[in-house]
Amino acid sequence: PEVYDQELYENNKYAGVVTGLAWTPVGGDILFIESSLSKGKGKLTLSGQLGDVMKESAVTALSYLKSNAEHLKIDHRLFNEYDLHVHVPAGAVPKDGPSAGITMLTSLASIYTQRKVKDKLAMTGEITLRGKVLPVGGIKEKILAAGRAGIKEIIMCSKNKKDLKDIEPDYIKNIKFHFVDTVDEVIKIALLKTKVEDPMIFSFDKNPNSKTQI
Amino acid sequence: PEVYDQELYENNKYAGVVTGLAWTPVGGDILFIESSLSKGKGKLTLSGQLGDVMKESAVTALSYLKSNAEHLKIDHRLFNEYDLHVHVPAGAVPKDGPSAGITMLTSLASIYTQRKVKDKLAMTGEITLRGKVLPVGGIKEKILAAGRAGIKEIIMCSKNKKDLKDIEPDYIKNIKFHFVDTVDEVIKIALLKTKVEDPMIFSFDKNPNSKTQI
Amino acid sequence: PEVYDQELYENNKYAGVVTGLAWTPVGGDILFIESSLSKGKGKLTLSGQLGDVMKESAVTALSYLKSNAEHLKIDHRLFNEYDLHVHVPAGAVPKDGPSAGITMLTSLASIYTQRKVKDKLAMTGEITLRGKVLPVGGIKEKILAAGRAGIKEIIMCSKNKKDLKDIEPDYIKNIKFHFVDTVDEVIKIALLKTKVEDPMIFSFDKNPNSKTQI
Amino acid sequence: PEVYDQELYENNKYAGVVTGLAWTPVGGDILFIESSLSKGKGKLTLSGQLGDVMKESAVTALSYLKSNAEHLKIDHRLFNEYDLHVHVPAGAVPKDGPSAGITMLTSLASIYTQRKVKDKLAMTGEITLRGKVLPVGGIKEKILAAGRAGIKEIIMCSKNKKDLKDIEPDYIKNIKFHFVDTVDEVIKIALLKTKVEDPMIFSFDKNPNSKTQI
Amino acid sequence: PEVYDQELYENNKYAGVVTGLAWTPVGGDILFIESSLSKGKGKLTLSGQLGDVMKESAVTALSYLKSNAEHLKIDHRLFNEYDLHVHVPAGAVPKDGPSAGITMLTSLASIYTQRKVKDKLAMTGEITLRGKVLPVGGIKEKILAAGRAGIKEIIMCSKNKKDLKDIEPDYIKNIKFHFVDTVDEVIKIALLKTKVEDPMIFSFDKNPNSKTQI
Amino acid sequence: PEVYDQELYENNKYAGVVTGLAWTPVGGDILFIESSLSKGKGKLTLSGQLGDVMKESAVTALSYLKSNAEHLKIDHRLFNEYDLHVHVPAGAVPKDGPSAGITMLTSLASIYTQRKVKDKLAMTGEITLRGKVLPVGGIKEKILAAGRAGIKEIIMCSKNKKDLKDIEPDYIKNIKFHFVDTVDEVIKIALLKTKVEDPMIFSFDKNPNSKTQI
Ligand SMILES: [Ca+2]
Ligand SMILES: [Ca+2]
Ligand SMILES: [Ca+2]
Ligand SMILES: [Ca+2]
Ligand SMILES: [Ca+2]
Ligand SMILES: [Ca+2]
Ligand SMILES: [Ca+2]
Ligand SMILES: [Ca+2]
Ligand SMILES: [Ca+2]
Ligand SMILES: [Ca+2]
Ligand SMILES: [Ca+2]
Ligand SMILES: [Ca+2]
Repeated sequence: PEVYDQELYENNKYAGVVTGLAWTPVGGDILFIESSLSKGKGKLTLSGQLGDVMKESAVTALSYLKSNAEHLKIDHRLFNEYDLHVHVPAGAVPKDGPSAGITMLTSLASIYTQRKVKDKLAMTGEITLRGKVLPVGGIKEKILAAGRAGIKEIIMCSKNKKDLKDIEPDYIKNIKFHFVDTVDEVIKIALLKTKVEDPMIFSFDKNPNSKTQI
Repeated sequence: PEVYDQELYENNKYAGVVTGLAWTPVGGDILFIESSLSKGKGKLTLSGQLGDVMKESAVTALSYLKSNAEHLKIDHRLFNEYDLHVHVPAGAVPKDGPSAGITMLTSLASIYTQRKVKDKLAMTGEITLRGKVLPVGGIKEKILAAGRAGIKEIIMCSKNKKDLKDIEPDYIKNIKFHFVDTVDEVIKIALLKTKVEDPMIFSFDKNPNSKTQI
Repeated sequence: PEVYDQELYENNKYAGVVTGLAWTPVGGDILFIESSLSKGKGKLTLSGQLGDVMKESAVTALSYLKSNAEHLKIDHRLFNEYDLHVHVPAGAVPKDGPSAGITMLTSLASIYTQRKVKDKLAMTGEITLRGKVLPVGGIKEKILAAGRAGIKEIIMCSKNKKDLKDIEPDYIKNIKFHFVDTVDEVIKIALLKTKVEDPMIFSFDKNPNSKTQI
Repeated sequence: PEVYDQELYENNKYAGVVTGLAWTPVGGDILFIESSLSKGKGKLTLSGQLGDVMKESAVTALSYLKSNAEHLKIDHRLFNEYDLHVHVPAGAVPKDGPSAGITMLTSLASIYTQRKVKDKLAMTGEITLRGKVLPVGGIKEKILAAGRAGIKEIIMCSKNKKDLKDIEPDYIKNIKFHFVDTVDEVIKIALLKTKVEDPMIFSFDKNPNSKTQI
Repeated sequence: PEVYDQELYENNKYAGVVTGLAWTPVGGDILFIESSLSKGKGKLTLSGQLGDVMKESAVTALSYLKSNAEHLKIDHRLFNEYDLHVHVPAGAVPKDGPSAGITMLTSLASIYTQRKVKDKLAMTGEITLRGKVLPVGGIKEKILAAGRAGIKEIIMCSKNKKDLKDIEPDYIKNIKFHFVDTVDEVIKIALLKTKVEDPMIFSFDKNPNSKTQI
Repeated sequence: PEVYDQELYENNKYAGVVTGLAWTPVGGDILFIESSLSKGKGKLTLSGQLGDVMKESAVTALSYLKSNAEHLKIDHRLFNEYDLHVHVPAGAVPKDGPSAGITMLTSLASIYTQRKVKDKLAMTGEITLRGKVLPVGGIKEKILAAGRAGIKEIIMCSKNKKDLKDIEPDYIKNIKFHFVDTVDEVIKIALLKTKVEDPMIFSFDKNPNSKTQI
């Protein structure tokens, strides 16, 4: 009895909320990846009826961030002293596939840095653990859905550029495309330098045992 | 051999007990979300034969509260030093779907703040991790059931407003509707400023390691 | 090749042993809920081939007791420093359903307080987390079985009172019925003020960290 | 390609090795319950392709011993500082059912006390958590197998006494039967006062936190 | 697309590598049990697509060693401060059954003592927790495979002696058979007094809490 | 809707990225094993829809490295104080089999030592826990794929040498083959003495309890 309507792009008010593009048997759609942090012990929770491949995508995105935390100016203690929850509405709709990889990565990067996500931006692309971006399917349907939803910029893998020639130019004339090969490029495009309004202030345990020596 | 009768609205005597609306193959019904806290280590227990989507709903509600604890004046130590149990009677009836999201959120907010829930109020709506309220199905059947059960006010997503035009005006003339878009609005409507009678008094561990620095 | 005979009521010698009523495809029967405590870390073990609903019933009963420990004069350290085992013989017979709820609750209340259970008493009824008692099915068969087994008093939900009119008055003239709406009433009827003979003496860890502040 | 021969009674040299009686589709057989302890943290390991009912039987036996440790003169620290392994050869033969309950209980009581098991003794019977012994099936086949295996004494539930009348008196004239109702009686019959030769010497952690107060 | 050739006996260079005998639908074969230790917390890892019975065999072998560590001159701290991995190549071939019991036991005894395994020796037999060796099936095929692989000595249960009369004397005239009843005998035959070349040097935590009192 | 193109060899810029060879129903292909480390507690994460055999392969590779850490100049604290993630793109393609064993081993050896992997090198072969390399199937298809992908050197088991005679000499004249029997040989060929550019700098906890005595 549940009914779901077509999503529209909303805004970039919250840290950790990033717009992705999904392929479904009845056409493309946009989806939102939401992340939240709360004081804890580094637990990861995934929800939104995610399939195994999509869960692995989230875990891979998190490992990438942990390995590259210094470069991204993320305090490493965040990974141990805060719990991370990633949710993908709508909660009853099963979702799977690797193509939300860069969207998840961007969501995590935003929540851990509290940096704002670029306005009216969507993205689709698989990530690998070393930070490569891989091409994904369903590009045509995804772009049409992005247009309908009010998206103005799209990030995807450079290897997906060829899929644009199947689309009527009129449909995409108002969308700016970013073709990337690495996660670094994604973050550079997607995350603004400014923090979200009213950013979360992180606090850490005083723990004499956690000092490190080399 | 078990038999279940139609529920009636009861009262708002207990913290953590909130009335939801359910769609079933034989018509709408009301249900109660019950929450309890006991000294522990932050464990979450869910019971009442809840399906995966409904369990994820509860977990998402809890994450939302943890992330927004300060705003809701919830002492964050509660999440680590008390165990939370959420139960949905009747215990033998399988339940699923995302539409109990705001009901669960309200139940948790009430048990953690010990604030009283508004009298003769019911609600239905999915929540997302960032605090959005999403529309759900089965509105007509749910509203009729609410009326039969003695409910006087209903909270639902503003996107469900359109579903009211399918209902005979007579059936709903005595019910006040609240159409919302965010969890914040739900809590503002559903939770009274006053605490329940004989509220639980929380106590916390003296733990020198748990002090924080920024 | 296992054979099971009809149970008879035994006695109220042991803390934590309470008589319940079961419905089976071949008629009603009585069953015993047995609980035991041993020094440990608060682990819960359930045995006797219990189904999911019945396991949730036990967990709900335990949460209720934890939340209401003070009221029932149970030292809260018992929940952390003793392991609880709940067993329902016969071990090879699968059992399920919510109707053992109040029997389990009474068994736990008895073992944690070491109070004696009333003599020749049986009970059937679902519990909820807030302490409501809900009606259950199979009342006629259960009462006939109770009579055959030598039971003299039965506790059930007030909403099950109507099921008595299906029973020949002769069968129940020697049984006293208690119709209840809350767990509090159940405990008041079922548990005697006196402790069992040779009650368990509880001991607790000296743990300087477990002191509390408000 | 594995082949199993009929077991014969062996001897009572080892602590924790007790002879049980099993019913199989091709007749009765004897089996051995073996238990061992090793320095650890109280972990329980069960092996020998045991089914769920039989595993619950072992767990129930262990809980009984823990609850009644003082009475049986078992140092309670053994349950926390030693790991227990219960194995039932032959390893590839699936086994299930509650009838090994008293055999397992006796095996555990022997290993924790290092007391010798009575010579040429076998047993069959379900246990409950409070220490009751319940009747089991397959008595005729089990007794015939015990006779063939060289068993001279058998312990079983008093309610199984009636099953003896189905057996030709000649088959059982050399076997002494013990009919019991409680676990206490079983232990009194089955365990000798003397320890096994070369008994295990238990050692315990010095742990200042484990002292108790009442 | 994977291909596996017939194994040949290799050498006894490594601690923890022991040659077993397997029955397969296409004839007998030899297999190697490999064990390794690394600084850790006593975790056990099993790999090589082992079935449940074979996993229980490994766990039983480990429990036997833990219980009899003193007798075998194994420092008990090894079980808590080192992780054990047991692998049975080839990694893609499913294996099951109890007949690798004594091979696993010997592998563990070798890795924990760093003693060399006897040259050109293979074995087959089930173990029990108290250290009995039980007969196994497929003896004829196993012995033929051992001969083809260059094995010169075989350990098996004394109850398997009868299976040799089915084999042409010519096939086994160059193989020396050891018929045993206990694990003790297996170790006495299989493990040399000398350590392997370049044995692992074990180191242990200084942990003031781990001292023991009796 | 996902599409995957034929991979090409990329470069040896990153520690932990090693090129393997895969057999698929539609021909050979190359794949990349990626490993990453991040401050943690020694947790292992595997992703890329790996089957059971392939997961056991990764665990076996890790155990081998832990057992032989000193020899490979890997600080043993890395295994306890860093989490390891092994990912095999593409994320949605199920993969299984033991033939990635040496590729995984090399990936782990590279990430733990931060040593560079040899340029334009690919490999295929099963590993065992003691460090043997075993032959694998699909050699012809794998080599053709390696050629197409720009690979110049291939490591495989010496027992796979015979499979080369099925391949047209022209296809393999530009590829150098290394036939090995042990993991030691693989590492010697695959890992350069030099570290990757901008290697990860490891830091360790000051933990007074972790000092060791012999
Ligand atoms: Ca949508
Ligand atoms: Ca996808
Ligand atoms: Ca209802
Ligand atoms: Ca729903
Ligand atoms: Ca019965
Ligand atoms: Ca029931
Ligand atoms: Ca047998
Ligand atoms: Ca049985
Ligand atoms: Ca082989
Ligand atoms: Ca076998
Ligand atoms: Ca590919
Ligand atoms: Ca393979």
